[in-house]
Amino acid sequence: MPEFIYGLWPIIESLRADRRKFEKLVLSDKLEEKGLVAEITNLAREKGIDVSRVQRRILDDVSDNSNHQGMALRVSEYPYVDVEDLLQRADKRGEKPFILILDLLKDPQNVGSLIRVADAVGVHGIIIQDRRQVSVTPSVVASSSGAVEHLLVAQVTNLVNAMKELKDNDVWIVGMDVGPNVPALDKQDLNMGLGLVMGSEGEGMRRLVRDTCDFLVTLPMRGQVGSLNVATAGSIALYAAWQARSWEGWTNE
Amino acid sequence: MPEFIYGLWPIIESLRADRRKFEKLVLSDKLEEKGLVAEITNLAREKGIDVSRVQRRILDDVSDNSNHQGMALRVSEYPYVDVEDLLQRADKRGEKPFILILDLLKDPQNVGSLIRVADAVGVHGIIIQDRRQVSVTPSVVASSSGAVEHLLVAQVTNLVNAMKELKDNDVWIVGMDVGPNVPALDKQDLNMGLGLVMGSEGEGMRRLVRDTCDFLVTLPMRGQVGSLNVATAGSIALYAAWQARSWEGWTNE
Repeated sequence: MPEFIYGLWPIIESLRADRRKFEKLVLSDKLEEKGLVAEITNLAREKGIDVSRVQRRILDDVSDNSNHQGMALRVSEYPYVDVEDLLQRADKRGEKPFILILDLLKDPQNVGSLIRVADAVGVHGIIIQDRRQVSVTPSVVASSSGAVEHLLVAQVTNLVNAMKELKDNDVWIVGMDVGPNVPALDKQDLNMGLGLVMGSEGEGMRRLVRDTCDFLVTLPMRGQVGSLNVATAGSIALYAAWQARSWEGWTNE
Repeated sequence: MPEFIYGLWPIIESLRADRRKFEKLVLSDKLEEKGLVAEITNLAREKGIDVSRVQRRILDDVSDNSNHQGMALRVSEYPYVDVEDLLQRADKRGEKPFILILDLLKDPQNVGSLIRVADAVGVHGIIIQDRRQVSVTPSVVASSSGAVEHLLVAQVTNLVNAMKELKDNDVWIVGMDVGPNVPALDKQDLNMGLGLVMGSEGEGMRRLVRDTCDFLVTLPMRGQVGSLNVATAGSIALYAAWQARSWEGWTNE
């Protein structure tokens, strides 16, 4: 099913990544073609995409009243890949696999934020389940600032089977857990083929998912207020894992 | 000026922290008194606070159409403290100072999220400037899930002077920066009296604030999409600093 991606960064990243079919670009009738907007319309025209003007309320409508910034791009659905493709990307880069696994997250903003950070630390891909989990909707694309357009996402029928497939390929599965007697995340060596599992908002990992992990780690907390948002906890864990790889692939120039 | 705190967690944390004057608690006429709601109304009545029912639209109005969850608490303004109080709290706990400094952040959600994480890692307090910076508004209280009610926040006229005051008290100032040739945050020993500075959304630290830092560090990034949100970057930095203190104060039971 075609869908509308909205917002300037999501649209430009989708065009740059060039992985979807692009049907048409629609602009609010009052949007001036300058700066980033002009960059987008030029890129679209180069690609032979139809560019047209519409009333703002049409954009409100196709973006479900989100912050569309006056622009929407009609595209084919998100190009999911297979778990194998994630492993191949790691292999191609000559790096140990670094994969983020999401267990039934429900909030598009959390998923989008996590994907954005996953891109920043250079994961080779993300695995999600096809049911009871937010898929890569236009809202997730927006929350990821378009980062997901460049990333590999595998959508699987059964998350536990995908975890086992990773294990068969020398990937260790580390689950972020809460509760007593779970070691802090820096007590586990994360410099290895890694599948990092984040559980859902409020509920954490499902029992079978947790049981399939090789190691459990936790994010220490003190202070007055309970657990952190999954996007925050996951961002910290992703950075800890990348730090364990000595910021592999970072060029500080 | 009295104001309305809204949402269940912000309200219960404000009542528990007991640092403001409480004028009255208002509930939506349809809200059932059970669970957390009953806990709040009981706590309020114990404290002799007037509890009354209002129409939902009144709550929409006093919360500026935010997610009030059917409840608002009229309170005196946020009880700011002095920089000295932050240092005293560190001293009382027998810990090296650990302070978060925000340089003109504009988004209440970013400020609230950072404050929530600051609480989770046990900072001794937060310093903000009184002008051109989001203060501790009800919206910040909500975004912090009420954590700010327990924390010490110093609101100062001049951020640079406050930084100098910290330096005079053996606190090292570390600024989170972007750009080339800035070392990664794990290359700097953070296990010291620490004032961690986060710059504003989009613009980073002001020049004079940056120049007043003892050290600058950066969060490495790779991937396709530009800089991370300040709340995400700050959360990672706060955790890195706490990790450098070996999770001081954490009881894993």
